[in-house]
Amino acid sequence: MSASRLHDLSRCAIHTQTNKSWKLRQCIDHYSAAGIKGISVWRNVLEEIKLADAAKMLRDAGMTVPALVRGGFFVAKDSPAKKKASEANRRCIEEAQAIGAEMIVLVVGAVPGISLTEARKQVADGMAAMLPEARAAGVKLAIEPLHPMYAGDRSCINRMAEARHICEQLNDPLVGIAVDVYHVWWDPDLETEIALAGKMKTLFGYHVCDWRPNTRHLLTDRGLMGDGCIDLRTIRGWVEATGFRGCNEVEIFSDEYWAMDQQAYLEKICRAYLQHV
Amino acid sequence: MSASRLHDLSRCAIHTQTNKSWKLRQCIDHYSAAGIKGISVWRNVLEEIKLADAAKMLRDAGMTVPALVRGGFFVAKDSPAKKKASEANRRCIEEAQAIGAEMIVLVVGAVPGISLTEARKQVADGMAAMLPEARAAGVKLAIEPLHPMYAGDRSCINRMAEARHICEQLNDPLVGIAVDVYHVWWDPDLETEIALAGKMKTLFGYHVCDWRPNTRHLLTDRGLMGDGCIDLRTIRGWVEATGFRGCNEVEIFSDEYWAMDQQAYLEKICRAYLQHV
Repeated sequence: MSASRLHDLSRCAIHTQTNKSWKLRQCIDHYSAAGIKGISVWRNVLEEIKLADAAKMLRDAGMTVPALVRGGFFVAKDSPAKKKASEANRRCIEEAQAIGAEMIVLVVGAVPGISLTEARKQVADGMAAMLPEARAAGVKLAIEPLHPMYAGDRSCINRMAEARHICEQLNDPLVGIAVDVYHVWWDPDLETEIALAGKMKTLFGYHVCDWRPNTRHLLTDRGLMGDGCIDLRTIRGWVEATGFRGCNEVEIFSDEYWAMDQQAYLEKICRAYLQHV
Repeated sequence: MSASRLHDLSRCAIHTQTNKSWKLRQCIDHYSAAGIKGISVWRNVLEEIKLADAAKMLRDAGMTVPALVRGGFFVAKDSPAKKKASEANRRCIEEAQAIGAEMIVLVVGAVPGISLTEARKQVADGMAAMLPEARAAGVKLAIEPLHPMYAGDRSCINRMAEARHICEQLNDPLVGIAVDVYHVWWDPDLETEIALAGKMKTLFGYHVCDWRPNTRHLLTDRGLMGDGCIDLRTIRGWVEATGFRGCNEVEIFSDEYWAMDQQAYLEKICRAYLQHV
């Protein structure tokens, strides 16, 4: 990796949820001021403004939008629940197209009482049903494998291998994977699966944060890059060896960091990014 | 599975840590009174009494002791730390032999700053060093794969596949695997790996509990069988299809259940075992 690529923020993007208390306007202004032109937009920041205004804000500021976060939740016990999910995913596609997001990150879902095998079938079916509209809108669909600790209630896809199986089934250039180190860093097959995703052209997104030893909460105790035990440089090396040239997206849910002054936190994020990503 | 095997406690064992507040004497008396003759002994309950007395208590009550819990923690940054671990493991073997435990359950360890690949090498080396004494004592060594959420600081072996790799390297009849559903239930390869372990004669132990959706704590929020989303009957079917006839060991760490009256909790455990295991 050339020093030039390592020591600048040119490929850094931040997920709005990382600075949970900021509105879209604040995220755009603060990120831009910090020299960060990438932003992955969480749907909650779009709820409070007109979609067209959000799109204009992002466009006027010249922001790159790797992802709209998040769609999916395909797994359901009955058809009303499935219908609700597919309507939400339809709105996702409209929003992603409107704000010029390259992809929608999919948290595929899991429901207690539905076996993981059955759940994975429902995910493939749900994505297949979503594809025509995604294609019409020119929006990619990125499966994000979630850590096995979320297999009970959030995602039946817990390793890159299972995400790859869905990509193989659907075999569509718009279907791929968003790799978040938080979920997959421990997987002994990670290097192999990243290389495979590169060959299959399914490596759509790369998310960074860190895993804190003695994690205090399953959802809101992610570490800032450097806080934990993930070898980020090595994994980024594997990702870029495939030819990936997308953004390195910073996505951190942390009660500890959410409690900080967010501008001071953003400065911390920039230093951590330059030092560890 | 014949109804007879399903609907009795004859193969039920309980880990003393499940009833954390009870001393060994209380565990033996209450389990025996409930018709449970299997007990896996945690080392803390041995600290407060003479080893010979513990052995006599277990023998006099006619208890079966599948496991002494726990040894391992092979991963370390320097040789003093490794020496400390090997001494602790030596004491483990003496204790296991003294109380007639069939196996020692190994939590293999993980240390931030040591890569998982390097850590797994240290585990294989540490177990190899432990083997001569284990052989002399006639005690089996069972690797317990821990959930990937413990990869940061407790175990670099997070799936049955990685445990199998160590078994293949050491290739010794005393080296095998303790399968705890809490850690591996989500693994798409679970059925295959259990069958493989059966063929390789490395399936030493089977631990049951449940995974609660919306788990509140990474260490102390395990579910009682039936509380969560693990298909225990199906997994027990896979385990017994290999010819496994050992105990089904109940091992639950739960602040919620530890706060209950422990005799009432034991009755709950028996009902849950008969209904779900």
